[in-house]
Amino acid sequence: MKIRVYYEDTDTGGVVYHSNYLNFCERARSEAFFDKGMTPVLENGHFVARRVNADFYKSAKLGDLLNVKTTLLQMKAASFTLNQKIYKEEEKIFELEILLVYIDFDAHVQKLNSETKELIFSLF
Amino acid sequence: MKIRVYYEDTDTGGVVYHSNYLNFCERARSEAFFDKGMTPVLENGHFVARRVNADFYKSAKLGDLLNVKTTLLQMKAASFTLNQKIYKEEEKIFELEILLVYIDFDAHVQKLNSETKELIFSLF
Amino acid sequence: MKIRVYYEDTDTGGVVYHSNYLNFCERARSEAFFDKGMTPVLENGHFVARRVNADFYKSAKLGDLLNVKTTLLQMKAASFTLNQKIYKEEEKIFELEILLVYIDFDAHVQKLNSETKELIFSLF
Amino acid sequence: MKIRVYYEDTDTGGVVYHSNYLNFCERARSEAFFDKGMTPVLENGHFVARRVNADFYKSAKLGDLLNVKTTLLQMKAASFTLNQKIYKEEEKIFELEILLVYIDFDAHVQKLNSETKELIFSLF
Repeated sequence: MKIRVYYEDTDTGGVVYHSNYLNFCERARSEAFFDKGMTPVLENGHFVARRVNADFYKSAKLGDLLNVKTTLLQMKAASFTLNQKIYKEEEKIFELEILLVYIDFDAHVQKLNSETKELIFSLF
Repeated sequence: MKIRVYYEDTDTGGVVYHSNYLNFCERARSEAFFDKGMTPVLENGHFVARRVNADFYKSAKLGDLLNVKTTLLQMKAASFTLNQKIYKEEEKIFELEILLVYIDFDAHVQKLNSETKELIFSLF
Repeated sequence: MKIRVYYEDTDTGGVVYHSNYLNFCERARSEAFFDKGMTPVLENGHFVARRVNADFYKSAKLGDLLNVKTTLLQMKAASFTLNQKIYKEEEKIFELEILLVYIDFDAHVQKLNSETKELIFSLF
Repeated sequence: MKIRVYYEDTDTGGVVYHSNYLNFCERARSEAFFDKGMTPVLENGHFVARRVNADFYKSAKLGDLLNVKTTLLQMKAASFTLNQKIYKEEEKIFELEILLVYIDFDAHVQKLNSETKELIFSLF
């Protein structure tokens, strides 16, 4: 997943605004679904961030072409954890561990059925 | 309606990213509803931008405290037009004319009933 | 220039937030420079929006793949005007006319030299 | 620090987009400086996020009025750690621990002098 840095991603400090690295990671998660002709909104629910641990190593700037790499760390009954790294050329500039919970359309946590678990395994 | 410029509003050019002035104007439109204990999502529909004409006169930067002034220009059967000016101290830095159309929750244009028209007259 | 609609581009109305179409157009303008191994920040200055006229015809939603087409309308001594259309499949959903002014790093308007004019002609 | 949720803060899931809670916290940090007639850009440098740990407990939606509370957890030679909680009425909906590093305008980490340390103690 390649991501170009545009003006809107930067701030007056001359680099990418800190929370936009989380957006880049979310794009990569969603694109995994889009690539399969799906959306991250499934028949019975969707995923929300429950916990985020992020390290900011280096800054990206206007015009940089970044690369997001996503791996599945853990699967639980109603949630899963991803590791997502952002690279600028060969250098890791950002790393995220994100716990995503599966909720229904009334925002109640629900178990991942086996079909949804298989989907997640196939995506990440 | 006072609006503070934060890091997220700026870009690497050192000033507010151009489309964020439209966001500031949208905040002022929404706040008119919030001030009355309402939201811009009414019982039967809500409003979407159909046409925008905007002039960018000066730039705002991190920490600036801006002022948005909104006036109603025209009311039609299913739409209305607002003029919105953004000031930095006494100087006008941005001006917007925006045509807003009333649509139902299936995205069909619908007429403004007299109650909704009165509401709009009272807000702007 | 293909643009995917991600969560961050949408709002609670279920469609792309209105000002983000301007961001998509800005990405296309910047990408024209990046494609040539340049950035939109030139040796002596850069470009800022001075006037925008935009029509919103249809909405885009999460997962849509949009296409931005940019053409040069007019070149003047210190500015130029672009037309930018956003398509969803074959349907035009947004159209922008934007006047961009060339300014130096002290924010003073400056004339486009012949080299910069040629660059703009080659990009759009 | 009161923060109103506007359309731009929400996404098609009907709630605030996850990374925007980090933006709300950044606004509160910056506003602490603005309140004193300063900006977060000091004479010799500014602050960048180095590590973020965030918990998302509940969602906020369009029109909500949120409250950000910030406390200083730890001060080190070249960095400090803040705890920031976001409340919706009396309920904590988000909590952030953020490590901020002091860098100069060439992006090199630098020690906080005693004046800057005192400033941080007085702000948070």
